[in-house]
Amino acid sequence: MANFDFKGKSIYYEEHGSGEPLIVLNGIFMSCMSWMAFVPAFSAEFRLILVDMLDQGRSSMMDAEYTQELQTEVILALYEHLGLEKAHIMGISYGGEVAMKLAAAYPGKVGRMILSNTAAHTSHWLRDIGRSWEYAYQSRDGSQFFKTCVPIVYSPGFYDANHDWMSAREDLFSKFFGAEVYDAFGRLTRSAETHDARPDLDKITAPALVISSEFDFITPPYQQKELVSAMPNASHILIPGAGHALMYEKPNEFTAAVIGFLRMKETLKVL
Amino acid sequence: MANFDFKGKSIYYEEHGSGEPLIVLNGIFMSCMSWMAFVPAFSAEFRLILVDMLDQGRSSMMDAEYTQELQTEVILALYEHLGLEKAHIMGISYGGEVAMKLAAAYPGKVGRMILSNTAAHTSHWLRDIGRSWEYAYQSRDGSQFFKTCVPIVYSPGFYDANHDWMSAREDLFSKFFGAEVYDAFGRLTRSAETHDARPDLDKITAPALVISSEFDFITPPYQQKELVSAMPNASHILIPGAGHALMYEKPNEFTAAVIGFLRMKETLKVL
Amino acid sequence: MANFDFKGKSIYYEEHGSGEPLIVLNGIFMSCMSWMAFVPAFSAEFRLILVDMLDQGRSSMMDAEYTQELQTEVILALYEHLGLEKAHIMGISYGGEVAMKLAAAYPGKVGRMILSNTAAHTSHWLRDIGRSWEYAYQSRDGSQFFKTCVPIVYSPGFYDANHDWMSAREDLFSKFFGAEVYDAFGRLTRSAETHDARPDLDKITAPALVISSEFDFITPPYQQKELVSAMPNASHILIPGAGHALMYEKPNEFTAAVIGFLRMKETLKVL
Amino acid sequence: MANFDFKGKSIYYEEHGSGEPLIVLNGIFMSCMSWMAFVPAFSAEFRLILVDMLDQGRSSMMDAEYTQELQTEVILALYEHLGLEKAHIMGISYGGEVAMKLAAAYPGKVGRMILSNTAAHTSHWLRDIGRSWEYAYQSRDGSQFFKTCVPIVYSPGFYDANHDWMSAREDLFSKFFGAEVYDAFGRLTRSAETHDARPDLDKITAPALVISSEFDFITPPYQQKELVSAMPNASHILIPGAGHALMYEKPNEFTAAVIGFLRMKETLKVL
Repeated sequence: MANFDFKGKSIYYEEHGSGEPLIVLNGIFMSCMSWMAFVPAFSAEFRLILVDMLDQGRSSMMDAEYTQELQTEVILALYEHLGLEKAHIMGISYGGEVAMKLAAAYPGKVGRMILSNTAAHTSHWLRDIGRSWEYAYQSRDGSQFFKTCVPIVYSPGFYDANHDWMSAREDLFSKFFGAEVYDAFGRLTRSAETHDARPDLDKITAPALVISSEFDFITPPYQQKELVSAMPNASHILIPGAGHALMYEKPNEFTAAVIGFLRMKETLKVL
Repeated sequence: MANFDFKGKSIYYEEHGSGEPLIVLNGIFMSCMSWMAFVPAFSAEFRLILVDMLDQGRSSMMDAEYTQELQTEVILALYEHLGLEKAHIMGISYGGEVAMKLAAAYPGKVGRMILSNTAAHTSHWLRDIGRSWEYAYQSRDGSQFFKTCVPIVYSPGFYDANHDWMSAREDLFSKFFGAEVYDAFGRLTRSAETHDARPDLDKITAPALVISSEFDFITPPYQQKELVSAMPNASHILIPGAGHALMYEKPNEFTAAVIGFLRMKETLKVL
Repeated sequence: MANFDFKGKSIYYEEHGSGEPLIVLNGIFMSCMSWMAFVPAFSAEFRLILVDMLDQGRSSMMDAEYTQELQTEVILALYEHLGLEKAHIMGISYGGEVAMKLAAAYPGKVGRMILSNTAAHTSHWLRDIGRSWEYAYQSRDGSQFFKTCVPIVYSPGFYDANHDWMSAREDLFSKFFGAEVYDAFGRLTRSAETHDARPDLDKITAPALVISSEFDFITPPYQQKELVSAMPNASHILIPGAGHALMYEKPNEFTAAVIGFLRMKETLKVL
Repeated sequence: MANFDFKGKSIYYEEHGSGEPLIVLNGIFMSCMSWMAFVPAFSAEFRLILVDMLDQGRSSMMDAEYTQELQTEVILALYEHLGLEKAHIMGISYGGEVAMKLAAAYPGKVGRMILSNTAAHTSHWLRDIGRSWEYAYQSRDGSQFFKTCVPIVYSPGFYDANHDWMSAREDLFSKFFGAEVYDAFGRLTRSAETHDARPDLDKITAPALVISSEFDFITPPYQQKELVSAMPNASHILIPGAGHALMYEKPNEFTAAVIGFLRMKETLKVL
């Protein structure tokens, strides 16, 4: 529950628990608040550092376009503000893209890395899905936003089994999201359009765990196999039955994989 | 290239070739024209009967809401108009939903049936994706329509490999689709919202072939396994590497499966 | 039901029906008899040519070791004996390996090609599974042979659902397989140990259809994706729910794919 | 490194580290020694209790046939010997089958449970694969044993990439396995033939993590989805690229999943 200044903007972060530091980078529609249900489990193991990047949650809105490289600088500034030499990094979707850039450029700063449901690059296909979302942002209509951006990030089975909750969320979005939130989503989405970590994946020497979901229709598992192959020290776990919004659909599997991987001290070689 | 009257509406259909009749039911954004590249292969084998259902292609637009049951009546009227006792039916996505209703209600009229990339029912999830499309129709903006409805029906790999063609199609949509086309898409989409063939699948006794695509993010393969299990005489083929728009992505695999299955005279039992 | 002479050995073959010639190459434990249930469907479409390669069915046993190149010569001799310039080729497992060699070396002789549940090369893994089978052959014990070689080629579900039939087959093997049959299986298995078509796959210009099974534990589908990628003109179909013995487990899906693909006159390009 | 008496037989076990007790139940060809590379990682987190069941490793050989129920009693005796009220249980393949029986019959004794590459019941298919192994045991030939039992439990890619190590293991087996080892493997295999935990899976209330491998050809992932569905409190993780011998092929993914799941104190509910 604190802030620091980044080039005249306020960056909001939270710290929970103690131990090895773990910085968590949010997906595009997430914020520190998204982690509420996970804070007890993660803070029991680590010094959990949640952070809202620019245009997220309680951090400042931006007033111009930018790319993900700027978010990488935000995270470097967070390291400096907290006096961290090295930390584990976990990135979800958009947050994983920022994490890759950080780990490739500053390998010494990253202990272990979790990349959950993340793309190695923004393909034409993914970019154009993002552009369909931008029409929804521009409408500033909570229902249009919800219908366009939410179902496809969940597995069909989960969405139907939790339909009342989904409807409640649609109402919530309609009530609480103002124009400035939708504008922020737009800038965040556009900041990822040029994302292409593929040429730098071989520089990511940190032990990395890629977590995929069987029914991830945004960053499908076969693409994540390519991501795993391109990093020199990557492991791979797939969660059956879940969609892109893995952490909400399968919180136990997600949390188990993250905690277990981050607690490991070395890479095992059996033969 | 002919028409017949259905309750004061004009229904457009085409006949190509000779042999056993095969009626083809289009997906929601398709029309008789979508089959141009396939006509030589199919008409070499069958009396190919393409048809635009209400609100599709060169058939009449509707002036009120309806459900898929009305499209089933259109197809029955087509049988009558052509004097067909029995025909093979192939339905793609929306067209497969109409085909299921026809085969369950009139088992004697269906020879063999192909269901390609089709849902047994419209889940909350699928309905809400459809509703996101309705916002795009209402915008009457070709680019918004394209970005919202097109990328997700293709596999990421195909979409990127054919990006120039995709962009050309986006331009085409923007130029040629008028308000009445988008209104028609809206009615078609809404007509499928109540679709639930699950209680009647055991009545579909015709030999049926379900064709699925590995990367179908609209009607994913695991759901189609449930569809296959629920029909008493169904076979199942999956095409690796393709998305929901299977026939465009893998025309050879699609065509081979269809022709081979329809030419079989009986169901083989080896043991 | 005829024979011809190949280097002093008798090669047995059968012809059924008329039309474009289709030569079928058996898997290792198969013979012309294995196709009994399929003859009506295939002979209704093609001039079906079944053949027992050396050490199979009613062809001569060999008296020395050999490699699959010799079987390729057998098939060339069959072309010559029948005066065939060109024929479709379908190979199952071992038969597909021979088919690849033929199509790479004599592209002009192959119309269209079906490769069902076939390996591009004999890996250490596959070779060692083959060597486990050789111990079973050497035992000349029908039950040992059955338990070692049969369950793993079927999907678990099919094997259990047809357990009585499987037990009857075990009895049959025990009664009818003599030492010379087991010796023949041994030579066939060893003749495939050096199989490696990978360097020549780009020479296979014939339209090829690779058919895979979801639960093929001998030639798993992911390897067949590599096979498809390596051939310049290959299509790919996967049959859900089946094991390596695809044609017995899913005869309708298998037959539909084969007939449909072989009847196609050209490779479709939609965009 | 200690023993206790079980009905006149000596049971060998090892304890490493401190913390919550974790009892590990071996697969059929495993023993306490199989865990050597894992002891540092697991003992840093838990009071790791390795145990050789009857007919395994340094525990007594049996002199008669038995069923897995007897191994369950062995583990109960271990609880008593160590004064354990409750422990986490991890079972690999055969060990998982014993773990299921224990957790269903004594739910109060099991904290959290890991079931890795384990079958809910011994199908005809699995039983007959086991019977093929028995022929290899009876041969008392190390190479026959190796070729019959080993390749199929590894993924093809791993087996080939580590072929020298595999060959060295074959030599090792040939040198060190005597008749009594093969007889023990036979009894172990037969003791699992009647395994059917399906009627009791709903009694397993302990939080359970099922770990599956993409290329597990002995206990394939689709069967493990059924296992997960049948237990009231089960999570599911799949490791891409690995075979049945998951812990050797993907030690990091395996260890991460196990440690993370066992450290969790409660089942997370996000919505």
